[in-house]
Amino acid sequence: MTASVAILGASGYTGAELVRLIATHPGLRITGLSADRKAGQTMGEVFPHLRHLDLPDLVKIDDLDLGQTDLVFCALPHATSQSVISALPRDLKVVDLSADFRLRDGAAYQTWYGGPHTALDLQATAVYGLTEFYRDQIRDARLVAGTGCNAATGQYALRPLIEAGIIDLDDILIDLKAGVSGAGRSVKENLLHAELSEGLNPYGYGGTHRHLGEFDQEFSAVAGREVKVRFTPHLMPMNRGILATVYVAGDARAVHDTLSQAYADEPFMVMLPFGQAPSTHHVRGSNFVHIGVAQDRLAGRAVIFAVLDNLTKGSSGQALQNANLMLNLPETDGLMLAPLFP
Amino acid sequence: MTASVAILGASGYTGAELVRLIATHPGLRITGLSADRKAGQTMGEVFPHLRHLDLPDLVKIDDLDLGQTDLVFCALPHATSQSVISALPRDLKVVDLSADFRLRDGAAYQTWYGGPHTALDLQATAVYGLTEFYRDQIRDARLVAGTGCNAATGQYALRPLIEAGIIDLDDILIDLKAGVSGAGRSVKENLLHAELSEGLNPYGYGGTHRHLGEFDQEFSAVAGREVKVRFTPHLMPMNRGILATVYVAGDARAVHDTLSQAYADEPFMVMLPFGQAPSTHHVRGSNFVHIGVAQDRLAGRAVIFAVLDNLTKGSSGQALQNANLMLNLPETDGLMLAPLFP
Amino acid sequence: MTASVAILGASGYTGAELVRLIATHPGLRITGLSADRKAGQTMGEVFPHLRHLDLPDLVKIDDLDLGQTDLVFCALPHATSQSVISALPRDLKVVDLSADFRLRDGAAYQTWYGGPHTALDLQATAVYGLTEFYRDQIRDARLVAGTGCNAATGQYALRPLIEAGIIDLDDILIDLKAGVSGAGRSVKENLLHAELSEGLNPYGYGGTHRHLGEFDQEFSAVAGREVKVRFTPHLMPMNRGILATVYVAGDARAVHDTLSQAYADEPFMVMLPFGQAPSTHHVRGSNFVHIGVAQDRLAGRAVIFAVLDNLTKGSSGQALQNANLMLNLPETDGLMLAPLFP
Amino acid sequence: MTASVAILGASGYTGAELVRLIATHPGLRITGLSADRKAGQTMGEVFPHLRHLDLPDLVKIDDLDLGQTDLVFCALPHATSQSVISALPRDLKVVDLSADFRLRDGAAYQTWYGGPHTALDLQATAVYGLTEFYRDQIRDARLVAGTGCNAATGQYALRPLIEAGIIDLDDILIDLKAGVSGAGRSVKENLLHAELSEGLNPYGYGGTHRHLGEFDQEFSAVAGREVKVRFTPHLMPMNRGILATVYVAGDARAVHDTLSQAYADEPFMVMLPFGQAPSTHHVRGSNFVHIGVAQDRLAGRAVIFAVLDNLTKGSSGQALQNANLMLNLPETDGLMLAPLFP
Repeated sequence: MTASVAILGASGYTGAELVRLIATHPGLRITGLSADRKAGQTMGEVFPHLRHLDLPDLVKIDDLDLGQTDLVFCALPHATSQSVISALPRDLKVVDLSADFRLRDGAAYQTWYGGPHTALDLQATAVYGLTEFYRDQIRDARLVAGTGCNAATGQYALRPLIEAGIIDLDDILIDLKAGVSGAGRSVKENLLHAELSEGLNPYGYGGTHRHLGEFDQEFSAVAGREVKVRFTPHLMPMNRGILATVYVAGDARAVHDTLSQAYADEPFMVMLPFGQAPSTHHVRGSNFVHIGVAQDRLAGRAVIFAVLDNLTKGSSGQALQNANLMLNLPETDGLMLAPLFP
Repeated sequence: MTASVAILGASGYTGAELVRLIATHPGLRITGLSADRKAGQTMGEVFPHLRHLDLPDLVKIDDLDLGQTDLVFCALPHATSQSVISALPRDLKVVDLSADFRLRDGAAYQTWYGGPHTALDLQATAVYGLTEFYRDQIRDARLVAGTGCNAATGQYALRPLIEAGIIDLDDILIDLKAGVSGAGRSVKENLLHAELSEGLNPYGYGGTHRHLGEFDQEFSAVAGREVKVRFTPHLMPMNRGILATVYVAGDARAVHDTLSQAYADEPFMVMLPFGQAPSTHHVRGSNFVHIGVAQDRLAGRAVIFAVLDNLTKGSSGQALQNANLMLNLPETDGLMLAPLFP
Repeated sequence: MTASVAILGASGYTGAELVRLIATHPGLRITGLSADRKAGQTMGEVFPHLRHLDLPDLVKIDDLDLGQTDLVFCALPHATSQSVISALPRDLKVVDLSADFRLRDGAAYQTWYGGPHTALDLQATAVYGLTEFYRDQIRDARLVAGTGCNAATGQYALRPLIEAGIIDLDDILIDLKAGVSGAGRSVKENLLHAELSEGLNPYGYGGTHRHLGEFDQEFSAVAGREVKVRFTPHLMPMNRGILATVYVAGDARAVHDTLSQAYADEPFMVMLPFGQAPSTHHVRGSNFVHIGVAQDRLAGRAVIFAVLDNLTKGSSGQALQNANLMLNLPETDGLMLAPLFP
Repeated sequence: MTASVAILGASGYTGAELVRLIATHPGLRITGLSADRKAGQTMGEVFPHLRHLDLPDLVKIDDLDLGQTDLVFCALPHATSQSVISALPRDLKVVDLSADFRLRDGAAYQTWYGGPHTALDLQATAVYGLTEFYRDQIRDARLVAGTGCNAATGQYALRPLIEAGIIDLDDILIDLKAGVSGAGRSVKENLLHAELSEGLNPYGYGGTHRHLGEFDQEFSAVAGREVKVRFTPHLMPMNRGILATVYVAGDARAVHDTLSQAYADEPFMVMLPFGQAPSTHHVRGSNFVHIGVAQDRLAGRAVIFAVLDNLTKGSSGQALQNANLMLNLPETDGLMLAPLFP
């Protein structure tokens, strides 16, 4: 038995990544693809690397027939997503890849996204899509909100430590390095090859990056008190991959033990031996997260390194993992591809 | 029923690529991995992107137990390969990824590789591994010789045309652009990031590149007369991918028709509509070949563009495709991964 | 005594490159910078790498005071350029970096640029800016038309050979590899880092690239008969640099001798020893052209490799070299910077 | 009057960079170049981007005639440097680019470099080469020790703050991102293009990086007490450039004011307006340092971003700046090249 899925907003990178992954999934069939500005084109025209696949043509959202669809992936821009999802049949399962349903608090949404949320009723039903920590709720959810890719990386390094109470909650710093595809297929000057290759720069520093809304919400919930991390993302001259270098006050061995225990049974979480550090090269194109922990120079200080592929585990892979749970399919189906190296 | 395979020389890029592909193959199990200089290490230590896989440790070739092995992939350097394969049990199937068994003529081998061939008896039994053109012989072969990655790309653009007799055999030019992983994991100054990034240069020009031995052998055999192509490879600032820009004298539409017909039933050959050109971006990490044909500016002249991933269709993917045939498994098993883009 | 220059269209890459070069020029002072859409900003805001320089702010063209200006560099888009230059005082010297005054024939302009030329009277007075071949006319010119960057590269490899009559004029092929900055600071999807890094593709093939207009005009003029070359440009994953691989029928040694003699006294033309090939790495950021010649595999066939930096010798460096001549300054002033490697 | 200089170890990247810079220096002439393993070759053979320059051939050190030489740049590997410099005439001025004379304390040297220092008498006379802070001593020095490139970047962000006493000395963290040329032209597997492009990883973390020796020595000296910073370098997929992201406890405005005042008269130090951040793109190939300061999210916390080119201001440009001082030449001669962008 094969479940039928549709992808709304299939002309962006996360849409294409979903197609790439689902192409090897034994239990899913893509029965609808929408892209308003590219309606009428084939997916192979918009993404020639998918030329060999037999896929439905791109249509406008309103022209999609979702009658037999079991689940919809919504890969639309922020704000658009909430209005589109509001209009979908209420019994249709939805995995949203936008930021629209990540923040449970309407005021927080307004703070970080600069406008009122127009579907707060739906928001109340959404489950935050960090699979390893919300697995049971996701299984039963109708609407799952994909996490920010940076937000996911930081949380993988920190959540079990906050929960275990073994680090100083007032001294957490995330210095993050992110590949450019995290910005999507937006046609902007600062994303040109000529502006990016062979150099790097910080962005969204000083407490301005929207993913802080997720860090605040999630870490505070886990800790049972307000937690505010410092966070400085940097734009790297590479397409895929995120490395979070996380600085904490705590015992490094305890940090390593706690993370190792937390992820012992997780299919996609790989802990490195104590003292080793991962590379984004080694997770590219895969759903795996590699985590390393080292004793920092000063006593009582540890460094945690977490890497993932922002388009896979950071968005589309995570979305598929959650869809598997919602559709009662094996959680790892379509997701065991080994990373591409070199 | 699962067949058992071993990889000799697993610490190079083609060895790692074989592991990556076989990891999703439903009918193969890796039961041996050798790497003389890295014996004793795990594959995950040598290639951390394969950390999540359950694999045998690396051992010296002599310590491999091949008793239950159905097929061996030999990913050793040229010259080493022929002596190692000579020592293997004669009933063990072998796919060789080196250059050692590509040239049927001992003199040609000596010309291009600078020394005598030491296993000419084995050479006589080897089948040239360009699957689409040697499929039946490969099925029955004990020893299959993987092709050169550049040689494969050029042949995909040209073989059906030479066979059909629709191009001038004395005026064929291949201007080829190749990613750096084609040189393997060799630690050489000219392969350093600092020497390669943001620039490019020709190499092996002027009739000196070894893959000309393959072009000469294969094209002459197909044509039934001597064919000598011109060939200029260039080293690109990228890891994977080959683009062959092939200039021929002939009718462009006939060229497109002939190639389209030749590849109509091939699972990995993708013909673009007439006048369109492919990009190496769109085959990266996959076993697909994309081919475009355009009318050149001058009447009676055509340009053919062929792209493939040198580590996949150009070596390890091709090897696996051939192994599938030799083991009587479905030819596409483990090979339908969509390309990774971006 | 210092000459005063202005740059129209200073917010593009060629404008910024002019500023970079002029910054070390002992005899020039920049007294005006225009950029209509960025008027009111400082150059350091638009191009932070020029922050340390003392430069006039960007203004709209109409707000420039050109009263004391000796020469204007016009780095505006095609079509805009001809109307702006038409409106300049007729005694003001102009170096145009657009395509507007490259083609002497109005019909040819219309063919390649898709519309009528609106300043054919000015066109009649323009000198084609390939310095080494038009030096005397440039010295006396009021208006010099900068060449296409690809067109320059191909001509450096071929002009002396065509003039000497030592190659077959009906069998010339230019396979060209170009960095992305040749497309300027245009914000287009195909110029994004995510679309370009780690891959390459042909473009403007099959006789459609506009620089063919220049090849046709110049080669035919030199030969005294119609010459039509084949030309296939490819977009490379790098910011700067062009490599032209040029295939000719002729004696390779004679080709090398002819080029060596032609460029013997040229300050920026570097001939490599026979049989060696250049790399774009080795001219980056400089005004130098490196040329290599090799015997091709077939008798009577030669390959010529020419490299230059498209933003320097291919546009802004060439423009400055021509301005030096027009202002009666030493030709190499501001242009002897060594290439940046690595 | 022109001073005569020689470069020992001219076949590495810092040697080539010195040649590139000196080529435009009005007051220096290169009269000797050594490279033991490449003796007999021309500089243009080893570094083709310097082909156009008229330079002495490479010779073995022992074959150099230093009789008329005013100053020697020593670009040899660590440990080799101290023995070579010990053997030079004591009245010959020396700028050393190795790590050998950076640490004033013999025990500290042994700790960080794993062996005893063999020229402690010379060490006692060496001046630490961070020009902006040791200018007067450098002017009078016979031997100047070039700083580590990472060490320089961190110090530019921090020294004036430590001196002013406006930050918490026990809570300083440097998260640093460095281009690959910092590792020199070493032929190592982890520096291959295939291992680096499109990914990144930390290295030398957890208090193990040798440049910590410099941080400890310098910061403690400035503070008048022991200062130990945390420091995590990361290897970036780019050739040139370092970004230090420095986290401090202190008032962000005071930090910006203090740095702005400290660098007000410095020719190569560029302070950005408060709240802005620099990019390594904008200093590439130049001797400039760009520094930005931002208020971090938490009250009383600031982030400082410092960027420089490791081969220029981080080593060879710094060396030339110091040589200018030692030879009583204008400090900025040969160093005012604008950065190369894109």
